[in-house]
This record gives sequence, C-alpha cells and structure tokens, in this order.
Amino acid sequence: MASKHILIVPGDGIGQEVTAVGKKVLDKIAAKFGHTFSYDEALIGHVAIEATGNPLPDESLEKMRKSDAVLFGAVGHPKYDNDPSAKVRPEQGLLKMRKELGLYANLRPIKLFDELLGASSIKPEILKGADILFFRELTGDIYFGEKGRKNNGDTAYDIAEYSRFEVERIARKAFEAARTRRKKLCSVDKANVIETSRLWREVIQKVAKEYPDVEVEHQFVDATAMLLIKDPRRFDVVVTANLFGDILTDEASQIAGSMGMLASASIGDGTGVYEPIHGSAHDITGKGVANPLASILSAALLLDISFGMKAESEAVISAVDKVLKAGFRTRDIADAQTPAHKILGTEAIGEEVLKFL
Amino acid sequence: MASKHILIVPGDGIGQEVTAVGKKVLDKIAAKFGHTFSYDEALIGHVAIEATGNPLPDESLEKMRKSDAVLFGAVGHPKYDNDPSAKVRPEQGLLKMRKELGLYANLRPIKLFDELLGASSIKPEILKGADILFFRELTGDIYFGEKGRKNNGDTAYDIAEYSRFEVERIARKAFEAARTRRKKLCSVDKANVIETSRLWREVIQKVAKEYPDVEVEHQFVDATAMLLIKDPRRFDVVVTANLFGDILTDEASQIAGSMGMLASASIGDGTGVYEPIHGSAHDITGKGVANPLASILSAALLLDISFGMKAESEAVISAVDKVLKAGFRTRDIADAQTPAHKILGTEAIGEEVLKFL
Ligand SMILES: CC(C)[C@H](C(=O)O)[C@@H](O)C(=O)O
Ligand SMILES: CC(C)[C@H](C(=O)O)[C@@H](O)C(=O)O
Repeated sequence: MASKHILIVPGDGIGQEVTAVGKKVLDKIAAKFGHTFSYDEALIGHVAIEATGNPLPDESLEKMRKSDAVLFGAVGHPKYDNDPSAKVRPEQGLLKMRKELGLYANLRPIKLFDELLGASSIKPEILKGADILFFRELTGDIYFGEKGRKNNGDTAYDIAEYSRFEVERIARKAFEAARTRRKKLCSVDKANVIETSRLWREVIQKVAKEYPDVEVEHQFVDATAMLLIKDPRRFDVVVTANLFGDILTDEASQIAGSMGMLASASIGDGTGVYEPIHGSAHDITGKGVANPLASILSAALLLDISFGMKAESEAVISAVDKVLKAGFRTRDIADAQTPAHKILGTEAIGEEVLKFL
Repeated sequence: MASKHILIVPGDGIGQEVTAVGKKVLDKIAAKFGHTFSYDEALIGHVAIEATGNPLPDESLEKMRKSDAVLFGAVGHPKYDNDPSAKVRPEQGLLKMRKELGLYANLRPIKLFDELLGASSIKPEILKGADILFFRELTGDIYFGEKGRKNNGDTAYDIAEYSRFEVERIARKAFEAARTRRKKLCSVDKANVIETSRLWREVIQKVAKEYPDVEVEHQFVDATAMLLIKDPRRFDVVVTANLFGDILTDEASQIAGSMGMLASASIGDGTGVYEPIHGSAHDITGKGVANPLASILSAALLLDISFGMKAESEAVISAVDKVLKAGFRTRDIADAQTPAHKILGTEAIGEEVLKFL
C-alpha cells in the first residue's frame, strides 16, 4: 500500500492519446492493489512552445523533479522537420529533460509477445525466443556536444564527446542487468574509426574485469545493425552510445513486431521517465488509431523500476498478453493473414487491457 | 576493344581469397570481349603495416592513382580491435585511400537475386522486388574530423563536419541516379538533433529544386533503420552521410540475403575503387569458404562504371544469376530448407561463374 505522485507528460502528436490510456491502466492498478496514485500534467515539446515559447518550461521541470515518476508521450512536429534552420525545436525540450534529470541510462527491452510472431517482417523461426535488453547512454555523445556553423554558415559541425565516468556508470548498469539475465553483454561501438568509441571500448574492457561471470563481446555498430536482423537471438544485454542506441533500438523494434509495442525507461540520478520508443506520429494523430500498448508497457516499467512493484508490473504485462491472445489488435500489429483479428482503436484496446486487470 | 590497367588491392583476411576470384572473372571478360587488361598488386591495411609499418604506403597510393580502376578486398585485424589504444591501424589505410583519391561517393546497390529470396531472415513477401541504391558520402563526417583526448585522456572527442559543397556534390550524384530509376530519393539525416544534419537537409532541399521530376523525402536515421526492414520496397535511391551510410548499408545487406552478395563502387575525382561491403572476416580467413560473389559483382560494377562496359558488366551479373539458378551456393547463402543446394567453397563457386561466362 503505497502513495505515489505521477506526472503525465503527453507532449506532441499521439503522445496525448497514448498516455491517456497509460494513465487509466495506472489508475486501475492503484485500485486493484490498494495504492494511492496522485497525478499532475506538464507541457513539453511543440505544445509547450505554442503555449509558452519554451520547449521545456521551468514549471514542467520543477514538476518532474518533485514527482515519483514521469509517464511520457513523445515530442516532435513536422513544421520543424521541414525547416532545418528553426532555432527553437520540440526536441530541445526532450534533450534538456534528459540532461537536467540526469537520465543517463535508457533501457529498451525488446521482447516479442508470442502472439505477434506473424506481425514482424522477419521470419518467425528467426525471431522466436529473441529477448534483448538495450542500455542506451542518454546524456552524452554527439547529442550534447557543442554544435554550430562556421565559414559564414557554409560548414556545420557537431562534437561527440564521452568521459570515462559517463561510460563507466552506464556500463555498470548494463553488467548488473546481464547478471540477472543470460549473463551475456554485447558492447557496440565504432572503435576502428572513432576516438569516443575507443575510450568506450577501453572502459568496457576495464569494467568487465569486475564481472568475470558475464561473457563480453565487442561489435562494431555496422555489423550489429546486420546481426540484429540476421540472428537476433544471439543478443542478451546490449550496451551502446546515445546515437548508436537511437538507431539500433528503432531497428530492433522490428524484432518485437512493431514500434507500437516498445516501452522504455530512462533512469539515472533522480526521477525516472517512462515512454514509448515511437515518436509523435503526426500522420495518425487525432485519428484514434495509435497503438497505446507501448505506453501501457511503459507504465509497467514505471511500476517495476521506479516503484519496485513487481506484481503490479507483471499484472499489466499479463493483461496485454491476454488482450493479444484474445485476438485484439491495433492496425499496426494486425496480421493480414489472420482474419480472426479484431482491429480496435486506441481507446477500445485500452478498455480491453483494463478488463483483464 | 580497350586496353586497361587494373590494380588489385586484396588487403586483409578474406580480401585475398575473394579478389583472386574477382580477378579471374575480369580476365575471362577480357578474353571473351577482346579487351586487354593488365594488372598490378598493392598493399593496404594490416598486411601493409606488417610489411612496411604504414597502412597505406606511398607506393600503393601511386599505383592507385596510375591505374584505370582498383579492385579492392577488405582491411582490418582483430589484433587492433582488442587494443583500442593502438596508434597505427589498418583502417587508417582505407580512410586515407578514400580521402587521397577523392572517393566521395560510395554506391551500394541492394538488389536481391530471386534465387536468394529464402536466404534472408526477412520474409520473402516483404523482400520480393526490393531494389535500393544507396549513395553514402565517403570523405567527410565524423570519420575525418579532428579527434583526440583531453582531461588527461579521460575525455575523448570526435568532430563531425560537413560543408555545403560536400553535401551538394553527393546530392547531385544521387539525384542523377534517381532520374534513371524510379525517380524517388530518400535523404537520411538526424536533423532534429544534429547540426551537420540540418545543413545536410538544407542542401538537399536546395538541390531538389533542380530535379522537380524526382520525388524527395527526408527521413530520420532511426526511422530509416526501422523502415528498411519493415518495408524495403518503399525505397529507391537513398542518400546519406558517411556514418549513417555505414550502418544502414550493412543492415540493408539482409535485404540482399547476405552480406556476401553486396558490391560497392567508390567514385569521385579520379580512379574508382570497387569492393565488397563485407569486411576482412578473420574468423573464416584461409578456410576457403568465403563468398566471392560480392567481389565478382564489384568487378561487374568496375566494368560498368569505370570502363563504361555495359555488356561486359551484364555478362558477369547474368553468370552469377545462372550459378545461383543452378543451385550452387556458398555456406552463407545456403538455405537449410533446400537440400538441393550444392555448397561450394570460394574457388569452386568462382569456377562455376567462369563456366557461365
Ligand atoms: C526525438 C528524438 C530527439 C529522440 C532521440 O533521438 O533520442 C527519439 O528518437 C528517441 O529515441 O527518443
Ligand atoms: C573498415 C571500416 C573503417 C569501413 C567503414 O566504416 O567505412 C567499413 O565498415 C566500410 O563500410 O567500408
């Protein structure tokens, strides 16, 4: 019986629709397990720029710091994507949040629900049993280094940077997780070309000595992008830098059938933030067809990691599993070969999850 | 009836084995079409370091400049991969060659031979008909910017850089190619975070005005990594920066069934260099099992692009096709479900290709 304060930060596009469903699931869990969850909301991204001119208003940041966990949606808007010279951008809010809250470790579990074997573009016999936990470093790399223009704007530059300390702390989190799993860790870098990757590899090699029970391999990012599709089952825990993690985890979403199924946890020095790995998806915003399961599974991660509520978290995952077993699907995970699938919208599939709770 | 001088640069690992087969195919083409091809060899990579201390000796570079085209193998050695602090590395030879020869455009055609539909981990119904031409920028980005350490070696940095000029010249090549194909161009960047990507997107938007007949889309690199697997047929020409191209083309090798099938052409200011996209693969070096088809198809690209020999190039591709149709496979592209496949080693499958020429 716990009392917790949860901040809902829907952000842009379908972020609104999916976090609304995630919140309902948290509510139901509180009722069922006798917890008291209180809520507040805060702005970020394009909606925050529209309302305040700032992609992450101080008020939002304060609320985040004071809450026990954040359920996050997505940020982004096509307006800025088509205007590369825009000075204020939704993504700045996201990056500032990560930096200010010290969210240096982004966990992205990739696990296929058996029922979705057919939904992936990868062959079922390659996928079956794949279970990968990504640790993406989230507050360093080319995302946060100095960037700008020179030569009258004719040359652009970005500086990628990593310190030993930054690599060490994410490495430890990944090694600890590997210990509780199949005891395999794959560190991904581009040490044959990039200096930050060479530092990365040195530090992983050093930290590895403290975990002799974990089997370590080093892979180049290009080879990893290939191996993830060729043989996803060879991976257990994967640890990598911010940019490589961004690319590889989106790619790996195909192992889980659809991007619409993937949750992530960003943790570090303070409040944890839980969010789908999908983006704001303005092409389907407001149509009521977005898949809320990633937001629901993000709520499950929140319960587990920030609140230590294992049973509650498992109840959510099992409810999602039952909804899939019952044949309910959103459009993105429906299998054309299975006419028995009942295609539901965002809210309706959320209601089915609630029923199984 | 032409007279051409071709430099064979095998490099490391299986580079030796596969270029030897590629050369035999060039020889046969010369005989069949009445051309005179003369050859020389040069060192690069680990073998060059062992022989001279230098990953790209001046002599090799001179020979490259003087030849009409280079058939290249691969560079790399596990020794350096396990020692991130090594000062002299095989890859420096490759990067120096690209820079010195002005090889700013790396073309990587991804096309599945029908016979290999079953060899991929991706479902045949997703793959069938996929045909992508990647243009990877090859002499800029984080590969060539300043890199180093600071804070007593505790912090590493790499600078990514692009000038308008560099983006423009590769953009033009990609747009020209799109015109001869399905007239679609996808430019891949990370403009929501990275300044070099914002410059990239600006320049593509500007050059696009000169090609109103080509339909342009901009995708983020993370989304592209996902879309390539989910729906490879949506892509025609893809143009992207050096690092993103490195990652995405290795990933896309799965669309072609295997990395062992993919050829590439590096072109720019002078001599063109043709090489498989696979690496030195020390785990199978010397075993005689490496797939030489990527080197053979690189020879086909060489004939087409550097020598303008279309019929000769097509003869090579058609011979590879016939070998596959006859059921011959190397290990990496054999389909476990098809017992009729005859598995051959490097030289033996090369001989089959020669027979069909
Ligand atoms: C929106 C964007 C800045 C962000 C990132 O690149 O980190 C997103 O792709 C993600 O993975 O959370
Ligand atoms: C060997 C390595 C430096 C090289 C690269 O990253 O460019 C390779 O992966 C390639 O794609 O040609």
